[in-house]
Amino acid sequence: MKSLIVQKYGGSSVKSIDRIKRVAERIVNRKKSGDDIVVVVSAMGDTTDELIALAKAINENPPSREMDVLLATGEQVSISLLAMAIGAMGHDVVSLTGAQCGIRTSDVHKRATIAGIDTGRIQQELADGKIVIAAGFQGIAKNYDITTLGRGGSDTSAVALAVALKARQCEIYTDVNGVYTADPRIVDEATKLSSISYQEVLELASLGAGVLHPRAVEMAEKYRMPLVVRNSYNETEGTIIKEDVIMEKVLVRGIALDENIAKISVFEVPDQPGIAFKLFSTLAKGDIHVDMIVQNVNRTSVNDISFTVNVDELQEAVDLTQKFAFEVGAQKVEYDQGVAKLSVVGTGIVANAEVASKFFETLFKLGINIQTISTSEIKISCLIDKERAKEAMVAIHKAFGL
Amino acid sequence: MKSLIVQKYGGSSVKSIDRIKRVAERIVNRKKSGDDIVVVVSAMGDTTDELIALAKAINENPPSREMDVLLATGEQVSISLLAMAIGAMGHDVVSLTGAQCGIRTSDVHKRATIAGIDTGRIQQELADGKIVIAAGFQGIAKNYDITTLGRGGSDTSAVALAVALKARQCEIYTDVNGVYTADPRIVDEATKLSSISYQEVLELASLGAGVLHPRAVEMAEKYRMPLVVRNSYNETEGTIIKEDVIMEKVLVRGIALDENIAKISVFEVPDQPGIAFKLFSTLAKGDIHVDMIVQNVNRTSVNDISFTVNVDELQEAVDLTQKFAFEVGAQKVEYDQGVAKLSVVGTGIVANAEVASKFFETLFKLGINIQTISTSEIKISCLIDKERAKEAMVAIHKAFGL
Repeated sequence: MKSLIVQKYGGSSVKSIDRIKRVAERIVNRKKSGDDIVVVVSAMGDTTDELIALAKAINENPPSREMDVLLATGEQVSISLLAMAIGAMGHDVVSLTGAQCGIRTSDVHKRATIAGIDTGRIQQELADGKIVIAAGFQGIAKNYDITTLGRGGSDTSAVALAVALKARQCEIYTDVNGVYTADPRIVDEATKLSSISYQEVLELASLGAGVLHPRAVEMAEKYRMPLVVRNSYNETEGTIIKEDVIMEKVLVRGIALDENIAKISVFEVPDQPGIAFKLFSTLAKGDIHVDMIVQNVNRTSVNDISFTVNVDELQEAVDLTQKFAFEVGAQKVEYDQGVAKLSVVGTGIVANAEVASKFFETLFKLGINIQTISTSEIKISCLIDKERAKEAMVAIHKAFGL
Repeated sequence: MKSLIVQKYGGSSVKSIDRIKRVAERIVNRKKSGDDIVVVVSAMGDTTDELIALAKAINENPPSREMDVLLATGEQVSISLLAMAIGAMGHDVVSLTGAQCGIRTSDVHKRATIAGIDTGRIQQELADGKIVIAAGFQGIAKNYDITTLGRGGSDTSAVALAVALKARQCEIYTDVNGVYTADPRIVDEATKLSSISYQEVLELASLGAGVLHPRAVEMAEKYRMPLVVRNSYNETEGTIIKEDVIMEKVLVRGIALDENIAKISVFEVPDQPGIAFKLFSTLAKGDIHVDMIVQNVNRTSVNDISFTVNVDELQEAVDLTQKFAFEVGAQKVEYDQGVAKLSVVGTGIVANAEVASKFFETLFKLGINIQTISTSEIKISCLIDKERAKEAMVAIHKAFGL
């Protein structure tokens, strides 16, 4: 029996007529090698941003339902054009919107979650020998309204389709060669990993290594679907992401840097039960993604709470935090955009004191102050001065001999 | 009980952010006057042409099914933007694609016909007090594939929805004030008609007066749905198109000029039964719209056949005719782009010799040769030299005292 591959091409891979034709060639060649193929595509290049700008020019606060109707056209354009390019090469092909793919979602607009996939139509088209081009990022709610999946939506569509169709693997095509030990634009010596575990790539992704959206990786891990990250511009072997391989030796797999964050601190918050919950639920309701949270051991009847957010959400986060501070009688709110988060990632590193000490020692030798430390099973993160972050990253990469 | 109005706005009425906002105001004001409103919109300005150019750059002969997926995004953008503009004015509104409107069509892509409309969703939204913004030009086939209705599609969507929803009337908003006695860009004295019959407007439309697509008028006539043509740029009363009112006196309602045609002649076609059928079925299969057909009374065993086509389809029509000529052994094929069709339209005019004689006399006085004459119950058309067509039109308009 034939095996099935799901491929996903991002916006930069289909940003022009020329790129679409090259992607079409790639798909047809792969199909000739014998596998059935389902291709998930994003909107072309900056289409989504342009559509958002158009909407804002008409309505500063456009209704989410209508935003989804508008944004879904982006992928509908790219699936039809890609299908035409494959058709021009003489191959049977069919484009399918999210609804036609049977991607059923919740009815929360702009950030719907996938409830299930009715694969009947896709299975039929594959049985007819066709390459299937599916619109990523979109689905359909119970009432037949168009929904979009929000950030990382196309990656998530691809993984969900791979799982539902029992694909052999899900290949994510992007503009980098795979997952690196550090960002190769910053660290010259960074090397590409041939394989990495879901958990490790999750930590790297959420820390700004940014190749794959965590949401898609989490789903792939849940269903043990192998993910391959490859470059759509060349034939380089990519990185395969699969189940954890337990190593005997501690292994730092990568260094990640996130400069796109800001720190917010609330000083002298009354020390009452539920007060942290109140702050962070306020932020969650405002759709603010909060990262590192630090609360010092309290000496008095008040606490200082610090946390980081994405800089894009800083203004709204500060507004909400300020409101919270007034309500509970906290002293003041400060924010700092001059910070960056530097992390080392690898299975089991926290259990090994050597990794942490080498990390901190390297920063100390450079004279870089650590503002905050946070750790997980497989990650150690430090908040440091943004100005010196790249320099620190290069040094850490070297210290661990990556 | 509330009555329902269906309005349709063409591409030029929603070609910019500013125009969309003005159309939104117009719709909300109308809604405030008490009627329920369903609005059908076309794609913005030149969107459709731009999408076609994009497709052709990828595939010279793009598959019809994929063209429909691509083209349908045009209206999906305009319905969502118009809904956002109405939302910004604080009014309840919902946009619906062709599929969500329940517009079921045949499965012929690029020129589907409407099979029926399941109005459940629209009725529900209207019952909830919402203004409904519907995508014109598109529908859904049995297998849930997206279809488009081809030429005049949005007008046809509007009339079909008006019929299915039992609307009081269907209003077509465009960039002219209504239906005129002649094209006001050519004839200064042309006056706007306050009312006209379906049949009369059909003759005017198919003769180049071009405000409404014949397909939409035919459907309106079949179901006796009153049509109103109005200008979306001003508040002028438009023209109402309704059932024929039998007049005691012959009344020339308008003069139409079509300069967008060409004449094709096939000489010395063998006089055999079925030969004309063969020619015109060949052209029909090639999707060529044939207009005036003239075959002279045959003197010998061969015939000369002439007909007119749209200049846009001339090349393909000549190719097909040439092929036919070779097959049946006709002598030669000629074509002439230097012709125009001038017509007078009005209920009962053919039965009244006075109209025809005044028409021909006026052309004679100007020294303009009549190449071909064709008539219907309510129309007399002459093929004349294109160079002198406008001059003739002005003179005829004056001769009939319009």
